[in-house]
Amino acid sequence: MVDGMTKTIACVLYPGLTALDLVGPLQVFSVLAGVSPDYRVAVVGQDREVVDTDTPLGLRPSHTFDEVPSPAIVVVPGGGAPTWRAATDERLLAYLRQAAETADVVASVCTGSLILGAAGLLEGRKANTHWSHREFLAEFGAEPVAERWVEDGKFLTAAGVAAGIDMALHLVARLAGEEVARGVQFGIEYDPEPPQGPLDWTKAPHELFAAWTAAGMREGLAGTPLAERFLRE
Amino acid sequence: MVDGMTKTIACVLYPGLTALDLVGPLQVFSVLAGVSPDYRVAVVGQDREVVDTDTPLGLRPSHTFDEVPSPAIVVVPGGGAPTWRAATDERLLAYLRQAAETADVVASVCTGSLILGAAGLLEGRKANTHWSHREFLAEFGAEPVAERWVEDGKFLTAAGVAAGIDMALHLVARLAGEEVARGVQFGIEYDPEPPQGPLDWTKAPHELFAAWTAAGMREGLAGTPLAERFLRE
Repeated sequence: MVDGMTKTIACVLYPGLTALDLVGPLQVFSVLAGVSPDYRVAVVGQDREVVDTDTPLGLRPSHTFDEVPSPAIVVVPGGGAPTWRAATDERLLAYLRQAAETADVVASVCTGSLILGAAGLLEGRKANTHWSHREFLAEFGAEPVAERWVEDGKFLTAAGVAAGIDMALHLVARLAGEEVARGVQFGIEYDPEPPQGPLDWTKAPHELFAAWTAAGMREGLAGTPLAERFLRE
Repeated sequence: MVDGMTKTIACVLYPGLTALDLVGPLQVFSVLAGVSPDYRVAVVGQDREVVDTDTPLGLRPSHTFDEVPSPAIVVVPGGGAPTWRAATDERLLAYLRQAAETADVVASVCTGSLILGAAGLLEGRKANTHWSHREFLAEFGAEPVAERWVEDGKFLTAAGVAAGIDMALHLVARLAGEEVARGVQFGIEYDPEPPQGPLDWTKAPHELFAAWTAAGMREGLAGTPLAERFLRE
């Protein structure tokens, strides 16, 4: 099934990530791969071991980084403290730099864009991340843009967590056409009815989330090379 | 942390399920548990082994059925052929019947409601499932209702896949209030912008999905006690 014409979409796994950041786009791409022989999906990790998430669920990748060195599309999920830790993981950063050289699309969900930033891939690029972390993009030379997903060249960065589903459907439309994207959308019955309505950004709990963000950074970056840069008093 | 006052939300794992059916609600409930000591979340399986999904990702539960015999809330995800197979798994059905006796809420996502139906729990109840499978609810004595989520007594059944997120946020509002639900919604930045817009149900690909549904039933129910009932020529 997998030949030279099949493009691999690699979703990256690392310990402690936000499960939905990964699984939203993964489900979209898996439906695409189910209807199009042009795509296959892999979940790539440093090894094949199960990793913990920010939920009680453990996740097991299908492939190692080494087994998928040159995916056509690579997607990096985000999270809290463990994502800051991952942003200092040289093996992960090296994998992303290498993949980015040949990939058609380098995507992220939520704070996954901070890992791309730490890999030096977002310098001079427009990008987004979880709303509570937007200010940190500038630390990596990126220009924060508050949109559901942001495209700049081969880089495609989504807003927080659930935005990965929107971004993935956008990417499917770009890759395979709107008709296929609509079919995938019917497949996952993505016809959202948030019971409290859309988010009212004038009521965003900025202070609460700023405290959580600071705590996550302290925990994730303690003792890492990024500590001095981000953990100022 | 877990005392007699803490309510357990158990998300059920079985082989071959649709990953997003599980992870959407799981993420919502995990954020709730992160801000409220009244709730904890468990992912329950027959054993602690990793199970495959309809994506390349493997999922590992945090607990066994036996370890969480009486959750306050139980949530059953759906899927394709493997979900029909699961609907004939007597250990899973026995767990759900037992949990339903004492649970405050018995919920499902997508075709997870067909498992509840097979367990005999939806007789005379209003319920929903993935739009492509709605007709099968009547086989289990349930009354199909085409809403994003359907409540009937302690039973709460969502539409397909992504509807689990809406249902879970609705449940959080019911359990912990609208303010908490809005906080969780900000946490997962659930402010949907489907790039192709909402689903246009006048253009639903009924024939295509009917063929897939039939294939999934044939594969999942072959050789099971439900074969005679559902696999008519």
